Amino acid sequence: MKPYQLVLASQSPRRRELLGWIDVPFEIHPSDIKEVSRETKPVAFAEDLARLKGRDVWGISSFDNPFIVSSDTIVELDGKIFGKPKDKQEAREMLLELSNKWHQVVTSVFFKAQFDEGIKEHCFSVKTKVKFSEINDDIMEPYLRSGESLDKAGAYGIQGKGLVFVESIEGSYSNVVGFPLVEFLNELKTFLGLSGKDIQWRESFKC
Amino acid sequence: MKPYQLVLASQSPRRRELLGWIDVPFEIHPSDIKEVSRETKPVAFAEDLARLKGRDVWGISSFDNPFIVSSDTIVELDGKIFGKPKDKQEAREMLLELSNKWHQVVTSVFFKAQFDEGIKEHCFSVKTKVKFSEINDDIMEPYLRSGESLDKAGAYGIQGKGLVFVESIEGSYSNVVGFPLVEFLNELKTFLGLSGKDIQWRESFKC
Repeated sequence: MKPYQLVLASQSPRRRELLGWIDVPFEIHPSDIKEVSRETKPVAFAEDLARLKGRDVWGISSFDNPFIVSSDTIVELDGKIFGKPKDKQEAREMLLELSNKWHQVVTSVFFKAQFDEGIKEHCFSVKTKVKFSEINDDIMEPYLRSGESLDKAGAYGIQGKGLVFVESIEGSYSNVVGFPLVEFLNELKTFLGLSGKDIQWRESFKC
Repeated sequence: MKPYQLVLASQSPRRRELLGWIDVPFEIHPSDIKEVSRETKPVAFAEDLARLKGRDVWGISSFDNPFIVSSDTIVELDGKIFGKPKDKQEAREMLLELSNKWHQVVTSVFFKAQFDEGIKEHCFSVKTKVKFSEINDDIMEPYLRSGESLDKAGAYGIQGKGLVFVESIEGSYSNVVGFPLVEFLNELKTFLGLSGKDIQWRESFKC
């Protein structure tokens, strides 16, 4: 079979970094679709966005035999979806809602590739529970000034300064960063229907 | 009261980065004691090493009114302590022992400072449970080649490529990185016996 070109449909530097930990050569081709969905339930919402991004890049990319991987991460509290805040004020409100509570981080990942028997798609989601400590002004204000809150679901990134809010987590850590690495490798093997040793990637690939 | 100079007695770039997330100005002054303890129980072992490092820096540093913070991180599996592997072979053995199991990461933190009523010390420990996925040769070998395993307890760092092994965690994430940030702030307030607002640091300090 023809080798695949792995394409990550994301502009998130955190996802690039995570995917970079495994020995897979890949290209970046972010989608620029509007992140809007009619879905209102958290998992359905995140899967819808992951699917929209992945299908968009499938349609526009000029890669030869691409294997598209896209994803979307949201924060959920009591059924309410927290995406990226539009400004500092919204970031502050989100963080105060999350303060001193457990919430869930949901990352949905979408695959699309051509097989001998046709084009296949697959989508899966991983949930991780995160507990915030109580956020007082003394840690809130320097955090908001740092500007880190604006491009992240729920207004925080566990890899950066947002770590200061995170008291505890239950489940996949890489999922909270934005890409569930262990589950990605497992789902990839299942999707490809083999051990990974027989699949050809554009360069060497091991999984 | 005279302002304190916060001194981190650690050469770990991960600890420096974590302490840097909070708005405390601090100096680095690693201890170069041998990391040897007679203690055999995991928490007692880590606390002993944290204490030895902190007391060493307290004795040798030339800081004016220092507030010493030192720490030690170990990995524990069924009562056995995993420190830093001495070479690749030992790193491989450690990772294979940890493969497909839950282990515990213990970080002990030690404080030492002068108060009006005398010199005070304080030590506390935080445990986090970490589950590794099954590690096969395909992910083991590139990992060992990367050289990342050698300066880390249990032969992995969750902030780097070692992330690929981590299926799940329960508890503080920053503790697994090597410095339990939320607990540090809480213990600091208790140790200082006040809200943190009345304490003077060498520069502005908020906690």
